[in-house]
Amino acid sequence: MKSRSISLFATIGVACFAGIASAKTYNANITEAEVLAAQKAWGAALVKISDDFASGGLPKAKATANAVLDAAYGYNLGPVLFKPTLTVAPQTFRTTKAGALAYFVGDDKNFPSDTGFALKGWKKVDIENAAIHINGDVAKTMGKVMITDKNGKVTTVDKTWAFKKDDMGAVRIVLHHSSLPFTAN
Amino acid sequence: MKSRSISLFATIGVACFAGIASAKTYNANITEAEVLAAQKAWGAALVKISDDFASGGLPKAKATANAVLDAAYGYNLGPVLFKPTLTVAPQTFRTTKAGALAYFVGDDKNFPSDTGFALKGWKKVDIENAAIHINGDVAKTMGKVMITDKNGKVTTVDKTWAFKKDDMGAVRIVLHHSSLPFTAN
Amino acid sequence: MKSRSISLFATIGVACFAGIASAKTYNANITEAEVLAAQKAWGAALVKISDDFASGGLPKAKATANAVLDAAYGYNLGPVLFKPTLTVAPQTFRTTKAGALAYFVGDDKNFPSDTGFALKGWKKVDIENAAIHINGDVAKTMGKVMITDKNGKVTTVDKTWAFKKDDMGAVRIVLHHSSLPFTAN
Amino acid sequence: MKSRSISLFATIGVACFAGIASAKTYNANITEAEVLAAQKAWGAALVKISDDFASGGLPKAKATANAVLDAAYGYNLGPVLFKPTLTVAPQTFRTTKAGALAYFVGDDKNFPSDTGFALKGWKKVDIENAAIHINGDVAKTMGKVMITDKNGKVTTVDKTWAFKKDDMGAVRIVLHHSSLPFTAN
Repeated sequence: MKSRSISLFATIGVACFAGIASAKTYNANITEAEVLAAQKAWGAALVKISDDFASGGLPKAKATANAVLDAAYGYNLGPVLFKPTLTVAPQTFRTTKAGALAYFVGDDKNFPSDTGFALKGWKKVDIENAAIHINGDVAKTMGKVMITDKNGKVTTVDKTWAFKKDDMGAVRIVLHHSSLPFTAN
Repeated sequence: MKSRSISLFATIGVACFAGIASAKTYNANITEAEVLAAQKAWGAALVKISDDFASGGLPKAKATANAVLDAAYGYNLGPVLFKPTLTVAPQTFRTTKAGALAYFVGDDKNFPSDTGFALKGWKKVDIENAAIHINGDVAKTMGKVMITDKNGKVTTVDKTWAFKKDDMGAVRIVLHHSSLPFTAN
Repeated sequence: MKSRSISLFATIGVACFAGIASAKTYNANITEAEVLAAQKAWGAALVKISDDFASGGLPKAKATANAVLDAAYGYNLGPVLFKPTLTVAPQTFRTTKAGALAYFVGDDKNFPSDTGFALKGWKKVDIENAAIHINGDVAKTMGKVMITDKNGKVTTVDKTWAFKKDDMGAVRIVLHHSSLPFTAN
Repeated sequence: MKSRSISLFATIGVACFAGIASAKTYNANITEAEVLAAQKAWGAALVKISDDFASGGLPKAKATANAVLDAAYGYNLGPVLFKPTLTVAPQTFRTTKAGALAYFVGDDKNFPSDTGFALKGWKKVDIENAAIHINGDVAKTMGKVMITDKNGKVTTVDKTWAFKKDDMGAVRIVLHHSSLPFTAN
């Protein structure tokens, strides 16, 4: 994580003993404020990858995406329950970091369907939570996420996240289910 | 929960001090076996509602669905993070029991788009987990669920569940995100 | 819990969906404020039992102690890890409610060594925490507890507690280790 | 943790992704078997420090004790709730590693009352749990611990432990309250 772009993701992935509120109290629990900050940081990271792709091409975008996955996802803790918006069988679920990286920036022959979701000129991310659950060091959220591209087109997805605060105080995405809204016809 | 059909759902919702493994050990954690049993019970309940609709009409199906929601979902614990497969804005998320019941059996003027997902002649449910997370009394699963109707037609969905084992030892669904697979069209 | 004295213990044992911070957020975690309130309520309950013994004799004290145990301890959840200050082998540990009640008010032939710790004219309880741990719905504390009797005599004990917030939002003592300070003599 | 003696403590402190039961399941919970193993390892470590003191003097004993604290206690996670058997005010509680090390091997001018509890020729440790609680990645135990010295003299203490399984799968003591049995005298 030597990339300078990592500073962007400090809200999610900073490694410090955030669990220690004072010399006397150790609190491992995740807070609602930490959850909301992590959601915003995810949106900022998506926009950052798009911006870096525009300014520095695939190498820059890939380096940023790699740093985001290291800092903000829980692949270091075990398999991540990740169902991206646009993936299809037999590679629907991306439980490994390689699968997630391919989804965000493409360029991986092992995931031939992936064209790089994060490269599509995203400019803004808005989040509307339907509800939030907080249990110990894990929080789960569900709601609508609206992402706007450089042409002003808005894509809305139904999104579920689970965030886990690790021993170092880093808040990591351990579950991420994203889907396009149902359309009748 | 006076319905006799409740016996079907014992695997999920039975109320006993399941947390006490022996006179000396109290273990509140959920196990992988309990998670798999709860998934199977969900499938059996869906088929049961369809069967009851066929044999007893809407009143019977509704009574069963109501018992399932009481026994197997966590609406008694707080808002449930439920994104059913076929719901649309502005009623995409069903954080209350009334909204879930309407989705499964319809017949609720407050949810006019709902036609009763559980009434559609389902006969079989198969589950393929991509991965499972277990943290304390909460488990999260993600994978494919294949549901077969009376004509042999199979519908596949991408499904994320979180199950929480409550103080009485009942395993309850507290999060449920279901979506049709992405199609490029 | 029909005793009117139960109102005293509301801080510890009130049954409501305290876990729901808003219509949108369900938070099962215990907070430091809840822990400190539960500690104070324990002290108030000890004084209350002593006062009730003075004013109403053993029946009144026993009714109050019984209500305290129902409301503020976790015997309904499983065995409680309770090592009272003055118990001796082979009845050192009081994992059942009967054993705890005998310790506090005596009068139980099954616990012949117990003379009723809570009947000894306690008037004031002060707590100095050395440190506190918060993990999900369980908090652990360790520190000095100073209890003053009606003659102004202060007894200091080293005390460890664990409190668990149950599904109803009640904060219950599930572990309690109390010991007199070591003296070299 | 360069000491070769660290191999002794592998049962408690080995760093591996023990949380991952398979490629598909991530389970962060602590098990009863892990708790019992950690208790036994604590006893073995106490005997090891005594043995090392006998064979290699204070330097060897101190190196071993230091390795034990690094591997088997949770001082890296925050303040540990540690009330050793023989400590007195104002240094009753040893929430820092320095305080714990002084208790076990003495030789610290900042803790002048400490003579080195682990240096007293301990040969055997037996544990009788009164009850065990398991909640997520934390387990709590309470019971009698009998430690036998080289002359066959047995010292019995009332002991409460809490063990936490960290992100690396290491089981660490985060709470430890030890006290001599009450004597009426």
